[in-house]
Amino acid sequence: MTFQAVGTVRSARVALEDDYWGDVIAEIHLDTSRFTPDALLGLEAFSHAEIVFVFHQVTEEDIVTGARHPRGRREWPRTGIFAQRGKGRPNRIGLSCCELAGVSGTVLRVRGLDAVDGTPVLDIKPYLREFGPRGEVRQPDWATELMKDYFRGEA
Amino acid sequence: MTFQAVGTVRSARVALEDDYWGDVIAEIHLDTSRFTPDALLGLEAFSHAEIVFVFHQVTEEDIVTGARHPRGRREWPRTGIFAQRGKGRPNRIGLSCCELAGVSGTVLRVRGLDAVDGTPVLDIKPYLREFGPRGEVRQPDWATELMKDYFRGEA
Repeated sequence: MTFQAVGTVRSARVALEDDYWGDVIAEIHLDTSRFTPDALLGLEAFSHAEIVFVFHQVTEEDIVTGARHPRGRREWPRTGIFAQRGKGRPNRIGLSCCELAGVSGTVLRVRGLDAVDGTPVLDIKPYLREFGPRGEVRQPDWATELMKDYFRGEA
Repeated sequence: MTFQAVGTVRSARVALEDDYWGDVIAEIHLDTSRFTPDALLGLEAFSHAEIVFVFHQVTEEDIVTGARHPRGRREWPRTGIFAQRGKGRPNRIGLSCCELAGVSGTVLRVRGLDAVDGTPVLDIKPYLREFGPRGEVRQPDWATELMKDYFRGEA
């Protein structure tokens, strides 16, 4: 299947780092050859959006199809690629829920997007409460530990 | 960019309908030519997963790049395609947070997946609390009204 980026991330963050994404303000510039401000009409009525993007710096050789220790940490259990959110995954798709910081024409400003400058964006969806998890959320301790500083502000 | 499905949805639901997805139990069958049970190792430690899929029944002509009334309802405001979650969108990507109902080999059972039988799956990610919205969620009234019966059990 073939997909075309709908826009591109513009951010001061250029290196894929593991943590401290919480305060990062990034812009998503829609492809103006295909979109007008109409594509974002009414988005400012939502507080958050889900951004679907591509970890474009990940090479074929970095892609894991089986299991590995998250972040290579051997004290955390060997875990399937679909049971972790690491970037070296089939299709290299990233997904993040960001706070909307503003819409201006075909440019969207978001807070806490864990994607670097130049990242191709595949989709933008408004966050609706009803699309959150239904029922109680449960996750293993290693995942909670891994996320400790992920969305924290810059150290 | 080229993507390859990592698996396929198997469900009793074959028609794209607007509502009553809450109790639907569906299976995602991984492509066994590329994946072993290792790919799902440890997923059962999570209560929920996010499923990234393709609305494969949507044709090129159904894709909206500007604004429209959600579900064609003229009493709801004209809204950009990236400010709604309708299926006729660029790249036709769907995204849903589902309760995990079981893992068996290369087959994953989920509850409440709003995708029909035969849907190609692009990615499966465990849901982590920290990836939920940070800060208070706000959404327009039309979105809340639209979602009223979406994840309700079958009428």
